[in-house]
Amino acid sequence: MRSVYIAATAQIPVKKSYELSLRELGASVAIAALEQGNVEEVDALYVSNMLSDELQCQKHVAALIADESGLIPVEALQVRAAMASGAAALRIGFLAIASGQADHVLIVGVEKMSDGPATQSLAKALDSEKEMPDGATMISQVATLTRAYLDHFQLPEDALSCFSVNAHENAKHNPFALFNDRQFSPADVMSSRVIMPPIRLLDCAPICDGAAAVLLTSADNIRRDVPYPVRILSSAMATDRFRLKDRAEPLTLMAAKQSAEKAYRQAALGSEDVDLFEVHDAFSTMSCLALEAAGFASPGQGWRLAAESQIALDGRIPLSTMGGLKARGHPIGATALYQVCEIVQQLTGQAGPNQVPGAEVALMQSIGGVGTSVLTHIIGLS
Amino acid sequence: MRSVYIAATAQIPVKKSYELSLRELGASVAIAALEQGNVEEVDALYVSNMLSDELQCQKHVAALIADESGLIPVEALQVRAAMASGAAALRIGFLAIASGQADHVLIVGVEKMSDGPATQSLAKALDSEKEMPDGATMISQVATLTRAYLDHFQLPEDALSCFSVNAHENAKHNPFALFNDRQFSPADVMSSRVIMPPIRLLDCAPICDGAAAVLLTSADNIRRDVPYPVRILSSAMATDRFRLKDRAEPLTLMAAKQSAEKAYRQAALGSEDVDLFEVHDAFSTMSCLALEAAGFASPGQGWRLAAESQIALDGRIPLSTMGGLKARGHPIGATALYQVCEIVQQLTGQAGPNQVPGAEVALMQSIGGVGTSVLTHIIGLS
Repeated sequence: MRSVYIAATAQIPVKKSYELSLRELGASVAIAALEQGNVEEVDALYVSNMLSDELQCQKHVAALIADESGLIPVEALQVRAAMASGAAALRIGFLAIASGQADHVLIVGVEKMSDGPATQSLAKALDSEKEMPDGATMISQVATLTRAYLDHFQLPEDALSCFSVNAHENAKHNPFALFNDRQFSPADVMSSRVIMPPIRLLDCAPICDGAAAVLLTSADNIRRDVPYPVRILSSAMATDRFRLKDRAEPLTLMAAKQSAEKAYRQAALGSEDVDLFEVHDAFSTMSCLALEAAGFASPGQGWRLAAESQIALDGRIPLSTMGGLKARGHPIGATALYQVCEIVQQLTGQAGPNQVPGAEVALMQSIGGVGTSVLTHIIGLS
Repeated sequence: MRSVYIAATAQIPVKKSYELSLRELGASVAIAALEQGNVEEVDALYVSNMLSDELQCQKHVAALIADESGLIPVEALQVRAAMASGAAALRIGFLAIASGQADHVLIVGVEKMSDGPATQSLAKALDSEKEMPDGATMISQVATLTRAYLDHFQLPEDALSCFSVNAHENAKHNPFALFNDRQFSPADVMSSRVIMPPIRLLDCAPICDGAAAVLLTSADNIRRDVPYPVRILSSAMATDRFRLKDRAEPLTLMAAKQSAEKAYRQAALGSEDVDLFEVHDAFSTMSCLALEAAGFASPGQGWRLAAESQIALDGRIPLSTMGGLKARGHPIGATALYQVCEIVQQLTGQAGPNQVPGAEVALMQSIGGVGTSVLTHIIGLS
């Protein structure tokens, strides 16, 4: 299997609403990544997006971005795993380079949630026959999971507040973050509006627009003059049953655990080797459970890492180092590509005031549905 | 790059409407393919489907099929290229095996079009900003293309009738075909209802339900006792501009031509080596233009191959040998997987009365949109 390198990245600021259309947002980062990578053509373009079927009436989004970016006749496919679609597209790019069928692959993630009602479409990540008819939405299912977690481990209601505080703190110096202008205390989190008990506004990532792109290349093509060649050390995925009640251990994100274990194995690394963790913090609960699933805390203890500042930039396991989904923003299909952009900043020493000193190995996780589809990538200096 | 073999296939009869749900249809072929391949676990499940977002309110269909098939915690992704999605999923399976990241990959294509109005959602394969606001649908754009073709080459109105006649003739002995009970003459085609001039009912593939699956494996795992090991000799994709007026040569399906050329090159074969062609005959026009694009006829001459019976089972280039999209049916996300099932039947001498004598190399093409996304695979005896 050939090694897979990250040759270039591009991101635009996450915003509540762009005037640019979906295709224009996607093309802007596609073209920027090609320019940054000094490449005019790629062998394939893999696109991730979750909501264009409903919000833009568009079911052919990979070819559309190819057309708008002037990349026709390039191979162009869309890859999906609900909210983990960005990582799914990254994984397919990884396979294309690893197989030898491609030398340069461009991954573009784009989402324009401001074009219509997004929440209803996001609920389609659940089981539409067995969950949605009962009125379930993503938020209701995460609320159920959160309640069960707090009750089972007999935790205080504010146990998870520090995840959001940390994310907003880290977004402060990220010019691409939606919320780089507001900091919060744990008390602020607990006094924010209740969305669905026990979830509050400041526990949730925002609805927003964004786009990010990553250019992958093979070892043969990576520029030797780059001071820090960044490589995808491993790529893995696992799934879990949809309904919490169908899961043997509903308080364990089994797919997060299993995909992390696969990724560690592939990279011959363990959680102790990880310098930072770009976690899928769409909800505070998911950060907590992901820390436990990826081996950083035992069951019921993930929240302590936040409460004890161990997830800060100088902590044991820095989390959401540029703001995460919570504060950088979560334009669904683009999110994992933003994570890659930020990891590359960290690994190449370009994270500015947010730099994790000596960062060499980054863990990145993306979750589709309520822990149903989870992709784990480990990215490191080669 | 590792060689990629087809270890097993499974299909169910295409029907106008199944009582089984989307997930049940998908799981039925998934389980059947695993049984046929004598495999209990796979490394990945790649699913293709086009319309579940709207028709089943489901945006997480790969994990859903994994859940329903008892395959959790398997890697499960959905791959899309509009109506060519089945071939897109096949291609990703090909990359996963070729890369060495997977030894067994299951590809499932499933579509249940009977659950709601499909035609409106199919139109989302067009450019939703630049074509749909003008009232364009798939049918209107193919009608425009057909009119332009007939006019440019000064052909009679019935020039394309024999494609449909051939497809229905070949479906006669296919127990999985939707229309295996009705034969038509060229005159029947021309007297069928006008859908949108110059397209008539018998020029169009039907709206229907179906599912098919293909189990891929590496050379290390292919059973040596199989008399005919079937290998994917090449896999390629190309795209074209969405709008006909943006294309330099609108009467040439450039993406079909370029993906075919890539596939021929990869396999070190030419059109003269192809024993049968499973073409994307969603409309008679597409069969004709695909024959020209894949090197079997010069521009304006594709229709002659049909009119002169050269596309029959004993002709120069047998087309749609088990009924094609036209008569076997076109359950969108499943279609390319049905094509693979049929090709395996042909290459292993199991095509019954439809057997193409000595078939060793099959060409397979899938088209998304009006020639926008085209995948070409060449499948042959190893």
